[in-house]
Amino acid sequence: MAVLAIAGGVGGAKLALGLSKILPPEKLIIAVNVGDDFTHLGLRICPDLDTVMYTLAGIANPDTGWGLANDTSETMLALESLGGPDWFTLGDRDLATHLERTRRLDLGESLSDVITALSAALHIKHRITPATNDEVSTIVETLEGDLSFQEYFVKERCLPVARSFRFQGASVATAAPMLRHCFLNKTLELVILCPSNPFLSISPILAIPEINSFLANTDVPVVSVSPIVGGRALKGPTTKIMKELKLEASNVAIARFYNKIISKIFINSTDEKEVAEIEKLGVEAAVTNTVMVTEREKMDLANRILSETGIKF
Amino acid sequence: MAVLAIAGGVGGAKLALGLSKILPPEKLIIAVNVGDDFTHLGLRICPDLDTVMYTLAGIANPDTGWGLANDTSETMLALESLGGPDWFTLGDRDLATHLERTRRLDLGESLSDVITALSAALHIKHRITPATNDEVSTIVETLEGDLSFQEYFVKERCLPVARSFRFQGASVATAAPMLRHCFLNKTLELVILCPSNPFLSISPILAIPEINSFLANTDVPVVSVSPIVGGRALKGPTTKIMKELKLEASNVAIARFYNKIISKIFINSTDEKEVAEIEKLGVEAAVTNTVMVTEREKMDLANRILSETGIKF
Repeated sequence: MAVLAIAGGVGGAKLALGLSKILPPEKLIIAVNVGDDFTHLGLRICPDLDTVMYTLAGIANPDTGWGLANDTSETMLALESLGGPDWFTLGDRDLATHLERTRRLDLGESLSDVITALSAALHIKHRITPATNDEVSTIVETLEGDLSFQEYFVKERCLPVARSFRFQGASVATAAPMLRHCFLNKTLELVILCPSNPFLSISPILAIPEINSFLANTDVPVVSVSPIVGGRALKGPTTKIMKELKLEASNVAIARFYNKIISKIFINSTDEKEVAEIEKLGVEAAVTNTVMVTEREKMDLANRILSETGIKF
Repeated sequence: MAVLAIAGGVGGAKLALGLSKILPPEKLIIAVNVGDDFTHLGLRICPDLDTVMYTLAGIANPDTGWGLANDTSETMLALESLGGPDWFTLGDRDLATHLERTRRLDLGESLSDVITALSAALHIKHRITPATNDEVSTIVETLEGDLSFQEYFVKERCLPVARSFRFQGASVATAAPMLRHCFLNKTLELVILCPSNPFLSISPILAIPEINSFLANTDVPVVSVSPIVGGRALKGPTTKIMKELKLEASNVAIARFYNKIISKIFINSTDEKEVAEIEKLGVEAAVTNTVMVTEREKMDLANRILSETGIKF
């Protein structure tokens, strides 16, 4: 039996790391968002998968959460001087990941096979899988028109006002083999929606019918960790987006958003006052420290979720 | 009126540099072999074009002749540690050229447009063009089977015994626009086959019917600089290949190989004894220093070729 963590980038990777520090490899699967993936300079780039891999490998840049620690920028500087697009930062060693992934995909390997190979090369013992091997692309519908995720997130620095999101390809996408295997063989005992952006990072996964249907109908507990603390997200544009979608930036709004899927939400201790309102939705609220700065805090949160849901490890 | 230099990689780039130091930009066009081009790690790589560009930009690695001076290898080291293919060396700053070229080709730009843009970014004033915008791929037919050029040249370090060569795509390829323009408008006053490997670097260009037919029929003098000095090539597998093709490693054999196209061949002073034999083929032989180590020697050879053929500059 295993725990499935559903994750986007930086926030999700933190909890995934905490889980990986206390669960043995066979007890954890991390399914990662591919909605941010794109092809740039001829290379296939999967920002969330790389963030999760680099975090679990202990080589992520601690300042940004993405990219590699102590990476250099020779290629980017040369690209800049050639007049090439420099809006998407690619470190020199990080580039090797994109080159090797692109090479393997060009040979016909599936993305999940590629991630398994890259994880092995990075000495990661826990299983990381893309949510799907199909292309699912997050499109941000803004007041200025439709933007691809990276255009919105990196090039335009989330400045355009978001109206809605769509996940191109999701309706015909299927779950990656490792996920489907768990679904069919009933080998899961818990599903955790990590504290990633619900609209941009978790939704593209939930938009895949096979995954959505499993989560909506399973007897296995599905819980989430709210990315909101004290009315703000710790990182990224979550609260800006919630405002633009006319949602209150609260744990209540997150619980409502995930309502059909989750039975419990973990919120930060400072937000205890929201518990009653959340429980009116039929969602249990558990109060704990959800702010994960140190490795200890990541492990503590993971521990708390597992014990609260009765998982033995 | 302009001089057309037909070049492969390192040897050709040396003479091209010499020519560029004495001819103004409007008087020189350098047409470069694309037979070595290949797609690797998702990137389009054009080794000969890059060698010529880097040489003219004054940024080529002086030790190898290819790649960039003082480049770093962070990406390659990381790729190696991921278990990726490390047989083809790509420096970090060199990689930017391949990324930007691939990006532009993916947008639908022709290779010649891309080279024009890259040349401009590298502040190169003289015109460099691929011989063709079509794909022409050199295949080395060896005793161990067919090998793509880079497999033969880099991966197998020219060790397999070559039996013959073919240039996939050449028979249906057409001259790049800049070349066709010269051919049609009769704006050339001299064509120089640079001292590149005749079999591997110049032949893929001569195999393009439009170019071959122009060179075979034009009234403009076509001359070559022999890559052989004292029975050996200064660089690369030329003499090994000549032996395998049952050719004597001599200037006579080079003159015979180019016989239908050239009216004159420049050979090194040490090889004066071959003059009579070469002239029996109906090819004039001019004796000079063809060994280009210093910039002075590159300019001297360029000067000698231009004055010998009556080109004013």
